[in-house]
Amino acid sequence: MNHAWLLPEYIEDILPPYARQAESLRRRLLDLFDGYGYELTCPPMIEYLDSLLTGAAGDLDLKTFKVVDRLSGRMMGVRADITPQAARIDAHLLDRQGVTRLCYAGPVLHAKPDGLMSSREPYQVGAELFGHAGIEADREVLQLLVASLATTGLDQVRISLGHVGLFRALSAAAGVAKEIERPLFRALRAKDAPTLAQLTEGLAATWRAAFLRLPELYGDASVIAVARAELPDLPGIRQALDDLDVLLAIDAGADLAVDLSDLRGFGYHTGAVFAAYVGGQAQSVALGGRYDNTGAVFGRARPATGFSLDLRRILGSLPEPAARSGILAPYSDEPGLHARIVELRGAGERVVVEFPGQSAWRGESGCDRQLVNQGGEWRIVAL
Amino acid sequence: MNHAWLLPEYIEDILPPYARQAESLRRRLLDLFDGYGYELTCPPMIEYLDSLLTGAAGDLDLKTFKVVDRLSGRMMGVRADITPQAARIDAHLLDRQGVTRLCYAGPVLHAKPDGLMSSREPYQVGAELFGHAGIEADREVLQLLVASLATTGLDQVRISLGHVGLFRALSAAAGVAKEIERPLFRALRAKDAPTLAQLTEGLAATWRAAFLRLPELYGDASVIAVARAELPDLPGIRQALDDLDVLLAIDAGADLAVDLSDLRGFGYHTGAVFAAYVGGQAQSVALGGRYDNTGAVFGRARPATGFSLDLRRILGSLPEPAARSGILAPYSDEPGLHARIVELRGAGERVVVEFPGQSAWRGESGCDRQLVNQGGEWRIVAL
Repeated sequence: MNHAWLLPEYIEDILPPYARQAESLRRRLLDLFDGYGYELTCPPMIEYLDSLLTGAAGDLDLKTFKVVDRLSGRMMGVRADITPQAARIDAHLLDRQGVTRLCYAGPVLHAKPDGLMSSREPYQVGAELFGHAGIEADREVLQLLVASLATTGLDQVRISLGHVGLFRALSAAAGVAKEIERPLFRALRAKDAPTLAQLTEGLAATWRAAFLRLPELYGDASVIAVARAELPDLPGIRQALDDLDVLLAIDAGADLAVDLSDLRGFGYHTGAVFAAYVGGQAQSVALGGRYDNTGAVFGRARPATGFSLDLRRILGSLPEPAARSGILAPYSDEPGLHARIVELRGAGERVVVEFPGQSAWRGESGCDRQLVNQGGEWRIVAL
Repeated sequence: MNHAWLLPEYIEDILPPYARQAESLRRRLLDLFDGYGYELTCPPMIEYLDSLLTGAAGDLDLKTFKVVDRLSGRMMGVRADITPQAARIDAHLLDRQGVTRLCYAGPVLHAKPDGLMSSREPYQVGAELFGHAGIEADREVLQLLVASLATTGLDQVRISLGHVGLFRALSAAAGVAKEIERPLFRALRAKDAPTLAQLTEGLAATWRAAFLRLPELYGDASVIAVARAELPDLPGIRQALDDLDVLLAIDAGADLAVDLSDLRGFGYHTGAVFAAYVGGQAQSVALGGRYDNTGAVFGRARPATGFSLDLRRILGSLPEPAARSGILAPYSDEPGLHARIVELRGAGERVVVEFPGQSAWRGESGCDRQLVNQGGEWRIVAL
């Protein structure tokens, strides 16, 4: 038996009419980004592994397909995330002092899928803002994310906001041991109460209580007031809650919620983080947040915030698109036909020429109309 | 010293404003293909090596980056060409009996560059027509290539037509030994007279003369008449010359020439082939031709013809694009400002918000105008 057409697990074609829908989404998103001043860049699919992994979230290493470069003998990786590439371009190539806004759209590859419902080839469309440390930048990025989700036509979108600054301030004040930090971060994220209780056992009562309380501090904007009243009054915590107040005040047109234990990117994210979900799905369709100083490995530390969407996940949450209709035209050199076809195509119509001997499979063309010569004029009639 | 920003040889970012130009080209090409009825597909970046290499031109194996699939243990490849993927989709997934028109746009990776001026990451945009063996299909594909080149805005484009059928008919009639076929094909392509003389030494005079004559048969459409008079009268040769007559008659709006020894894709191409060049450049910006039966390995042999363009090469041949201008807006919650920004962005303007403390680097924003509050109205004035 012939199985040459079988694709690897978690790898899929995007077929018509879905590919057309993906292209339309891509265009709407990039046009939106352009309107906000984000300049399009196309970083390569492959780079030296050093560049791809430095400064990025740690789990990127496991996700990255690696190949040896036959030209240099050095290890290269197929990109698993475009964000570090945008940081490289900001830090090294554009070398601006003020704000740089960049955007991108393209496939990335993951050696292992994120989960059972994930693809190993997400189509990442994103926007990144470099060079401004203030919450104004996070606000713009969050507004752009909201506008992006609106332009996709997704229903029942909810955005969850968190802030890594809370964890960082609390850990520093509590003197959490270095080796405990990562498991503690994870336990908070998982709202895993037993592990939290165990990991915070040695901490002073104030800090322990704060860590144990964090997973319960989620909901609408009123959570911030509760957190101000109940969490220790540390500068880092005050800053984080002020930041979240600004972000929660934007006109989201979507369900905007806060979850103070919704942490991501240990050692990578540095401020506000956000994730967008559709309906009751557990997998996010978009992720974002602040990741200052990533550019340092490329020679220049810069404040940075941004987000990216996975076009494949968004496609999976949208209704099946309608197939493109069209006009069938005969294969003929009769006068006027060619000019008429050119005119119709120029007006945005899909005109499919039927070759000799192909009429039996006319139904496969997706056409609902045809061009017919009526007294020397080429008219469109129903098929 | 820090070199994390260094890219591998023959790998490059596409930076603004070039990336925007590439996006614009991509859109114009895909819209053109859509108008002709070509349905967009997005095959994956990675597949099992078997699927990627079967039926394709032989040199694809050397060009393909290979990785082991951690999930299956099988060898996978990063695609070096999208055409075999389109053939797989036609043969196996869509399974239509009549004509199927498919198109695609995306990066491919090459382990080794094609030449000193080549990228290892061409951006391949192409259209393929399956299911029709007649010259009508080649004619449509060539017309679409001509229209594609016109839409790119390239100057001084020339298209060279050839036909693999000539070589196949002549080899069969002359009884060329199997092991000589490939070197003979190459020598013809290279117009390498000494090697040709050597390789054809044992052949009967008629065939030998024909092989030696082929490299001289190039030029405008009048070459076909010369070839009809001088080449042996074989059905395969007659068919090839008839095909070329049809193709040379199209309204190219470009320099359309024929070269009877311009052969490509030994063991892959089966009929008319074409290549497009810009100015005096030796590297083509587009390649195409007939490749019947490629789908056989996917379970269904189908006639096929098509072409693809390399967007990177086209970019390299176009004048440098203008940077996108824009309107600078203050970061403020003053009444009317937000609505005015939304309105301008909706009308296609790029509106860049200037954050507090960023005015010193205003020149980096690329803006030539700004929004100013004049008596309660937000007006656009020169920057």
